[in-house]
Amino acid sequence: MTADTSTLPAFEAAALTDPLPLAQALIRRPSITPADEGALDVLQAALETLGFRCTRLPFGEGDERVDNLYARLGTAAPNFCFAGHTDVVPVGQGWTLDPFAAEVKDGILYGRGASDMKGAIAAFVAAVARARDDWADGAPGGSLSLLITGDEEGPAVNGTRKMLDWLRETGETIDHCLVGEPTNPGRLGEMMKIGRRGSLNGVVTVHGSQGHVAYPHLADNPIPRLMRMMSALIEKPLDAGTAHFQPSNLEITTIDVGNPATNVIPGAATARFNIRFNDLHTGERLSAWAREKLEVVDEGGDHDLDIRISGESFLTPPGLLSDLVSDACEAVLETRPELSTSGGTSDARFIKDLCPVMEFGMVGRSMHKADENIAVADLEALTEVYRRVVSGYFAAPRG
Amino acid sequence: MTADTSTLPAFEAAALTDPLPLAQALIRRPSITPADEGALDVLQAALETLGFRCTRLPFGEGDERVDNLYARLGTAAPNFCFAGHTDVVPVGQGWTLDPFAAEVKDGILYGRGASDMKGAIAAFVAAVARARDDWADGAPGGSLSLLITGDEEGPAVNGTRKMLDWLRETGETIDHCLVGEPTNPGRLGEMMKIGRRGSLNGVVTVHGSQGHVAYPHLADNPIPRLMRMMSALIEKPLDAGTAHFQPSNLEITTIDVGNPATNVIPGAATARFNIRFNDLHTGERLSAWAREKLEVVDEGGDHDLDIRISGESFLTPPGLLSDLVSDACEAVLETRPELSTSGGTSDARFIKDLCPVMEFGMVGRSMHKADENIAVADLEALTEVYRRVVSGYFAAPRG
Ligand SMILES: [Zn+2]
Ligand SMILES: [Zn+2]
Repeated sequence: MTADTSTLPAFEAAALTDPLPLAQALIRRPSITPADEGALDVLQAALETLGFRCTRLPFGEGDERVDNLYARLGTAAPNFCFAGHTDVVPVGQGWTLDPFAAEVKDGILYGRGASDMKGAIAAFVAAVARARDDWADGAPGGSLSLLITGDEEGPAVNGTRKMLDWLRETGETIDHCLVGEPTNPGRLGEMMKIGRRGSLNGVVTVHGSQGHVAYPHLADNPIPRLMRMMSALIEKPLDAGTAHFQPSNLEITTIDVGNPATNVIPGAATARFNIRFNDLHTGERLSAWAREKLEVVDEGGDHDLDIRISGESFLTPPGLLSDLVSDACEAVLETRPELSTSGGTSDARFIKDLCPVMEFGMVGRSMHKADENIAVADLEALTEVYRRVVSGYFAAPRG
Repeated sequence: MTADTSTLPAFEAAALTDPLPLAQALIRRPSITPADEGALDVLQAALETLGFRCTRLPFGEGDERVDNLYARLGTAAPNFCFAGHTDVVPVGQGWTLDPFAAEVKDGILYGRGASDMKGAIAAFVAAVARARDDWADGAPGGSLSLLITGDEEGPAVNGTRKMLDWLRETGETIDHCLVGEPTNPGRLGEMMKIGRRGSLNGVVTVHGSQGHVAYPHLADNPIPRLMRMMSALIEKPLDAGTAHFQPSNLEITTIDVGNPATNVIPGAATARFNIRFNDLHTGERLSAWAREKLEVVDEGGDHDLDIRISGESFLTPPGLLSDLVSDACEAVLETRPELSTSGGTSDARFIKDLCPVMEFGMVGRSMHKADENIAVADLEALTEVYRRVVSGYFAAPRG
């Protein structure tokens, strides 16, 4: 670790138009979730330089305490919000470079969080620093805000969700939100996300009766029952997809019995499954479907089923936000991004309850991997895209 | 633990006709496999009192070192051998009495090993002490021997198997063998074992490709493949049983993936199975069957299969040994035992390569359980059965 959390870099407003130094300063804080290591302090210093009013919103107790930041420039409506996270996933194996040195080699910036998503945060701050020149009084015809959590890669309990509660409680309104997650699979400008599939996790435990393999008639092996039940869940596709969504999908993620004895029939067996579902379903209806299916196949046998809905599917229909990003990409990158709902969940699943939300950020190819990196040219281009989105947002006619 | 391993009880030959004190002395040695705690010393002292020549046969190194005992009375042929083990399984939970105090309450002897199988060893020694009166010179018209291991409940590597090698190497011949395992399910005289099913253990690991549940097309989930493969193994019964054997049976004993992440498709999944098979099969033919079945179902997929044959099925056809035990049971208990091949394996699976072998011992209802116990009256009756078997063996006309 080369990070130094004892001193903060000093930013000048003019220098903030370059996203690279801020991206490097953020990467040099090893903010492995839920640690912050001064990352939010770095961001807050930069935002205050640009005139943002910053509010720190720590939530949770003890080991679960997470720091968060809400920052706003201006007081008028509409309020355009950029959302993201400063926490990063653990380093893992296989790095050839220091994950927190933020080195630039041959035009590539390396470091944990470069792609997911400190680069995008730096690009957004730089975009605001540039957009200020478009506004006569240095403030937009409305407000710009940042909603930045330190708990997106972790349990996501003391982060965006609680910040949204705080926004509601304090009467703070957000009108549109752009999340800076790395949405581009391989090339900047390829893809934005206008929604996400829902996600649901199930745990099935089948109870049998333990015994000796030599006396199977005295035992009830739960494994064949569990296999029949799980096979029934994956027998048929859940659907064939919809206009904006891929087909829903069920994966059995693990089966565990943990019986070390080769001569013992186990007494219980557990499987877990995850369903990623589109707008043809709700978490509740899918839970009922799984519950009934398993009961029918188990024929009144003894089993437990626990289902947790992580998030419902949602869609922000194509419109203002997606047009702004598409037009900006066309101007900067000469491409119009695909409007996708593929991939994993993000905090957009919480924000969608507040206002229209979509996602567009860096190239995600190396996210969560060794030698995570982004092209410095992409960082510059994303800054220009964000600048055009912000400027366009406040220039757009409103009803 | 109340066991005292520092002193040995002194036995007088006349007193050895009562099996109870020796059974208690053996139980009071907490010989939890592979520990001996002086159990074989107790037995050897009793056998030497009766004139047996004793040879200790320790095998294995370090933590795996196990002590064993071969004892012989007389030098002439035929040599009738009683086989068994002085090691016991761990105490486990739920005892209401001291497992090593060998208390007698209301005619019941309690203690770990009472049923499996220190009681039977004591009964055999007492039977010999009684039978001596039948023989003019205190020795039978042949030889009596005991083959006692301290490694039956453990890995069974440094016990009977190595003693049999030693017997072969030293030219020591055994003509017939009676193993004193607890063969009676609920009542003394119900059942003897004239063979055992074979046993085979398989481990299947299916390799897929790890990935994120949100991108199933980039991953290959091994769990559905493993479920299809294991389902194919249990689809049909292996057979319907034979004259002396129950149907063969395959049990899936465990499935383990060990994937803690609800959003990750695992890269591999492992199942284990055990087959108990009768004389319609051999371990090799069943291995080939399982191998082919799994390959067909996996359709050329990547999986590993490891099969270990623990023992082939064997049968000592009804004859001299079973007749001796049946006649003795009829005389002592007014019942003729069922000739069975059911249940788990025992060291008889090794001895069968040397000579005809069968098993008859105490009531096994409480074996391996809390408050393991036998009726003192059963101990006395088993002693009488063994006495009649031994006397009958040497009285029988030979070809
Ligand atoms: Zn992220
Ligand atoms: Zn035993």
